[in-house]
Amino acid sequence: MHFGPLFHPRGIAVAGASDSPGKAGNALVRTLSSFDGDLYPVNPAGGTIAGRQAYPTVAEIGAPVDLAVLAVPPRAVPGVLADCGKAGVAAAIVCSGGFAEAGPDGAALQDTVTAVAREHGIRLLGPNTSGFVNPVDGVFASFVPGVADLPAGPAAIVAQSGGVNLALCFLAAAEGLGVRLGVGLGNAVDIGFADVLDYLADDDKTTVIGLHVEGVSDGRRLVDAVARAAARKPVVALKVGRTGVGDFARSHTGAITGPYALTRAALAQAGAVVVDDPTGLVDALRALAARRVPPTARPGVGVLTGQAGPGLIIADALHAAGVSVPALTPASRARLRELLPPLTYQDNPVDTGRPAGTFPEVAATVAADPGVDALAVYALDEPGALDLAATVRAVADTVPVLVASGGPAATLDERQSELSELSVPLFRSPDRLARAMSALADDAAAAHRRAHRAAPARPAGRLLGPEPVDEHRAKELLTGFGVAAPARRACDTRAAAHQALTALGGPVVVKIRAASVIHKSDVDAVRTGVRTADALDAALDAIDRAAAGLGVEARYLVERQAAPGPELIVGGTRDPVFGPAVLLGVGGVGVELAPDPVLRLAPLSDVDIQDMVAALPSPLLAGYRGAPPVDRAAVGAAIGSVAALLLHYDDIAEVEVNPLRLTRDGPVALDAVIMFDRSAGEEEVGS
Amino acid sequence: MHFGPLFHPRGIAVAGASDSPGKAGNALVRTLSSFDGDLYPVNPAGGTIAGRQAYPTVAEIGAPVDLAVLAVPPRAVPGVLADCGKAGVAAAIVCSGGFAEAGPDGAALQDTVTAVAREHGIRLLGPNTSGFVNPVDGVFASFVPGVADLPAGPAAIVAQSGGVNLALCFLAAAEGLGVRLGVGLGNAVDIGFADVLDYLADDDKTTVIGLHVEGVSDGRRLVDAVARAAARKPVVALKVGRTGVGDFARSHTGAITGPYALTRAALAQAGAVVVDDPTGLVDALRALAARRVPPTARPGVGVLTGQAGPGLIIADALHAAGVSVPALTPASRARLRELLPPLTYQDNPVDTGRPAGTFPEVAATVAADPGVDALAVYALDEPGALDLAATVRAVADTVPVLVASGGPAATLDERQSELSELSVPLFRSPDRLARAMSALADDAAAAHRRAHRAAPARPAGRLLGPEPVDEHRAKELLTGFGVAAPARRACDTRAAAHQALTALGGPVVVKIRAASVIHKSDVDAVRTGVRTADALDAALDAIDRAAAGLGVEARYLVERQAAPGPELIVGGTRDPVFGPAVLLGVGGVGVELAPDPVLRLAPLSDVDIQDMVAALPSPLLAGYRGAPPVDRAAVGAAIGSVAALLLHYDDIAEVEVNPLRLTRDGPVALDAVIMFDRSAGEEEVGS
Repeated sequence: MHFGPLFHPRGIAVAGASDSPGKAGNALVRTLSSFDGDLYPVNPAGGTIAGRQAYPTVAEIGAPVDLAVLAVPPRAVPGVLADCGKAGVAAAIVCSGGFAEAGPDGAALQDTVTAVAREHGIRLLGPNTSGFVNPVDGVFASFVPGVADLPAGPAAIVAQSGGVNLALCFLAAAEGLGVRLGVGLGNAVDIGFADVLDYLADDDKTTVIGLHVEGVSDGRRLVDAVARAAARKPVVALKVGRTGVGDFARSHTGAITGPYALTRAALAQAGAVVVDDPTGLVDALRALAARRVPPTARPGVGVLTGQAGPGLIIADALHAAGVSVPALTPASRARLRELLPPLTYQDNPVDTGRPAGTFPEVAATVAADPGVDALAVYALDEPGALDLAATVRAVADTVPVLVASGGPAATLDERQSELSELSVPLFRSPDRLARAMSALADDAAAAHRRAHRAAPARPAGRLLGPEPVDEHRAKELLTGFGVAAPARRACDTRAAAHQALTALGGPVVVKIRAASVIHKSDVDAVRTGVRTADALDAALDAIDRAAAGLGVEARYLVERQAAPGPELIVGGTRDPVFGPAVLLGVGGVGVELAPDPVLRLAPLSDVDIQDMVAALPSPLLAGYRGAPPVDRAAVGAAIGSVAALLLHYDDIAEVEVNPLRLTRDGPVALDAVIMFDRSAGEEEVGS
Repeated sequence: MHFGPLFHPRGIAVAGASDSPGKAGNALVRTLSSFDGDLYPVNPAGGTIAGRQAYPTVAEIGAPVDLAVLAVPPRAVPGVLADCGKAGVAAAIVCSGGFAEAGPDGAALQDTVTAVAREHGIRLLGPNTSGFVNPVDGVFASFVPGVADLPAGPAAIVAQSGGVNLALCFLAAAEGLGVRLGVGLGNAVDIGFADVLDYLADDDKTTVIGLHVEGVSDGRRLVDAVARAAARKPVVALKVGRTGVGDFARSHTGAITGPYALTRAALAQAGAVVVDDPTGLVDALRALAARRVPPTARPGVGVLTGQAGPGLIIADALHAAGVSVPALTPASRARLRELLPPLTYQDNPVDTGRPAGTFPEVAATVAADPGVDALAVYALDEPGALDLAATVRAVADTVPVLVASGGPAATLDERQSELSELSVPLFRSPDRLARAMSALADDAAAAHRRAHRAAPARPAGRLLGPEPVDEHRAKELLTGFGVAAPARRACDTRAAAHQALTALGGPVVVKIRAASVIHKSDVDAVRTGVRTADALDAALDAIDRAAAGLGVEARYLVERQAAPGPELIVGGTRDPVFGPAVLLGVGGVGVELAPDPVLRLAPLSDVDIQDMVAALPSPLLAGYRGAPPVDRAAVGAAIGSVAALLLHYDDIAEVEVNPLRLTRDGPVALDAVIMFDRSAGEEEVGS
């Protein structure tokens, strides 16, 4: 879309303008007073507002107006917007609240507003937003007066909440990061994340983009726009709602995780750096505004300090964030031995002890190490002993560098100015330096992931029969996509079960076979280790009892018992917001008590699959309880198979293999559930 | 100890003083130049240093010197220190590095230094520290010049690292928090955490204490001192080393967690607020410097915002931190309905929409709610619409309040000054407000815990026999302390096993009985569900094979099979640093793959036990897979029993009950291991 009339208008009308201090319509006119185009207060009473002539309606302005900013009561919005349309206004911001966020009546009013805007071809920001700020072009379309002081700079903010947009812009400014554009989407009935992201991706004045995401209605549109933007410039994303309860992965084992985790995973998969809070977002933007690390699966960070204690804090935080702090080469260490006194720590982190004149050369040596892709430097400010600017200049030709220091605020302000001229940010605590460095590393890893992003998949057909499938059929389908399952027989009679035991040989597992019974062991309808006819009869008796109790027909599944091994869960779901998604985690009956599984949108790239497997608990990967190390390729293949099955049939709502047991002969699906989107099934019936 | 000569000396000598700019001995003299007592540079060459007469030795000063600061090469330290001793110096700081941190030679030199100091009765800070700062009394004993600008205030810092001490002091100052005393302990051969904590607990000028802990040598001494200090004023602690590998809980299931988790748990148990990083530490100090919430098991936080988006971030962060944000009473909500427009959110969080004149009264209403123990307020700065100072004044008589705002830096500086006069800190981002509020809530909960702290326990005796005990004996011991175990028979022969089956009735579990075999199922030496003589023989055959393979005698344990249920691990260990400690977590064979268990030092108070149980995963507590909700009292009793057993016999190195199965008849120890401190056993043999 063409955003010129919105973000860089020639004329602006403020509907609901007021001369009463404290009112939003007054603050808007005052805040916009530095606008160098034409500004028109609009108020039915006319008169003079903040020294400007007010017009009763937008239509009566009689001059070109690109943008109308509405601070009128919600019920008045449709009328004012229609008036704007007639006057040829191209874009509008509706600041007023009282729409969908306020209940059914508000939602109906919001639909009306949307329809009026569409009818008149007005692009709409909001409703329920504090607007946007464009310090580069001097447009401050917000009723919060302080925004007019926001410095221009390279960072764009796109926030779901108008309040958070301004909070982030102020935070950035306080850290010395200027703002290109800060947009609060509000209820986003027209202009959404994807529109603004596409605009910013093309905007040469935008160097780095920060996102604030609460809820998402079209997840794929968001992540595709993030991927497009991240290919051009860094994107940092904050997702709110960690503690919300969501719909994803309400599998037959219960709610495994919420949309928070899936949204974060999807944003990271698309190439965004995902952060935890506003401070982390601003620190990441500062780190990334200057220089990116080239795409790398796992970038190495060099850590150089003038005091060992902060160095330990930084290294600890980087390790905890999964960032590599690699050992230096023997050549680098030999050079450091020449440059440093013998008692200092000369690996990575490198601690110089109290800095001396060689500090810049030490920094250059660490930065030049082949394993080091970015350098983090922390040292207390010690005039005469430490020259941070010289240090930064010494590494400027090698890798990106981030610096933190401690000292009196005024002194650090000076250092920050010096480093700004070298396009290097100065942080003021070791932990914030470490978080910023994590963002730099995450961006490089995200770029690597994005370069290997899977192409979209098209479903091949529908699977749904009139009945849900039972475990036996589910395993057949999975086997067809490459997931092994134990040799087994679906038996309708006890006699058939006895034949199956003879054919398969013991030990076997005997289970109830009924699509409606998911938690078989909870109803005592599973027997393991069955070797003899007597034991089989006992097992069948138990299943018959369970079936009678449940009111289902007693059918059996007799299955060769798999070798022991660690157990995983591999699942797929069709998320209402993001569509097909898969999960991998520690499985078995304790799945709800295990650490959170890792999530990805499908289709999966090879890198996605590798990342998912690598996120399994390290004791499991290393070889758990005498098991050999996990065969990562085999587990990866199983995830890929589940994803492929989910993508192939678009009426599958959910696939769950739990457990996928890692035997010495490879991964085997010991239990499997496939559930369908029943509404899809009512329209069409397939095989 | 008497710290006057160290922290508030009358005369100071600087050994190793130098006139060469850039040298530590020069920076020390310059930094100390504002000291209003007598300052004596000491240098063998004499002459003039920074405009003061230098003395060849401390002895030659010929005037009273309380404190000597040594910036001399490490090998020179013992001699200079002896010289100080002869001159009657009471306290010394050894800034030089090159001692225990530098290897065996340094460690030997450190022992010499310690001995010299002891011989002369000199209290020693360091070696390997940048010293201390005492802005209140104008003593800046550090070679980092910027410290002389540190403002005096209420916060004391005690850091293991001299560099971190100064980094924290500068961070505090940058946030407007003045420093009472900042001490870097360095290698702490004499003055350690406990000494300084006891001093600060008594010091009327100290309002709040921040700790930075890397490693600890005497954990009990530290936590006892923290408990004493926290009874008087808030203590905030940062433990570094999240990613280190440690010794705690290297149980028979492997390394479950490291000393990082145990140290944090022990500090919190003693009454400290435990934070994650330096920024969090400073924010917590600011929050706690003004006012504490009275001791409360789970304080309720009211959240009031002028913009809903930041409110969501705050509420989300508080929820994630486990802080209660309780619903308001109907009376409070009714009053809010009168004060606010209809479309705002009037529960907790309370969002006013754009603030209006009623904002202070809204704040007072939320603060007065009986469920609210502290109030968090966030609003963008909107002159004319919002008066933060009036808001704070409106709640000053009710509960502690923390405020955050967004706006131009200069404006926020003004607001911060206004609020400072009301003893309320202003934060500048919603996430930092939430973290500070968590600290306030944690302090109240810690005070509640501390008020219920268990009295120290004295061991009653030793248990160790010449051999480790087997599972049967371990269960006998546990049963004696109150942990139920299944009915069982220890059998030395197959015939005895058959008698046991008859006596107990099936199904039984049959296991190898050998103290040396810990992972019985890994060697196929366990059979469950044994009901018949044939099945028993098959089980005994398997055990005989396993015993032969392991080269141990084939003995058996035949045990009545327990009813199904969720499984926990309850363990106890004697940590080398902290002594007796217990853990509780999700158990069973997947224990290494479960979320981290929760740890506490023993003895345990009732509150400790309640906290441990409450930290179990909520799906488990609520009733897992058809199980009833966990009987918290019964699980708590089992933890208490394990702790009691561990405390009773001081030669028990480790107790582990895994799994403790939660059956409908109560918790039952299905497996149990007790291991001994073998070195203790060599001295004494008991029953």
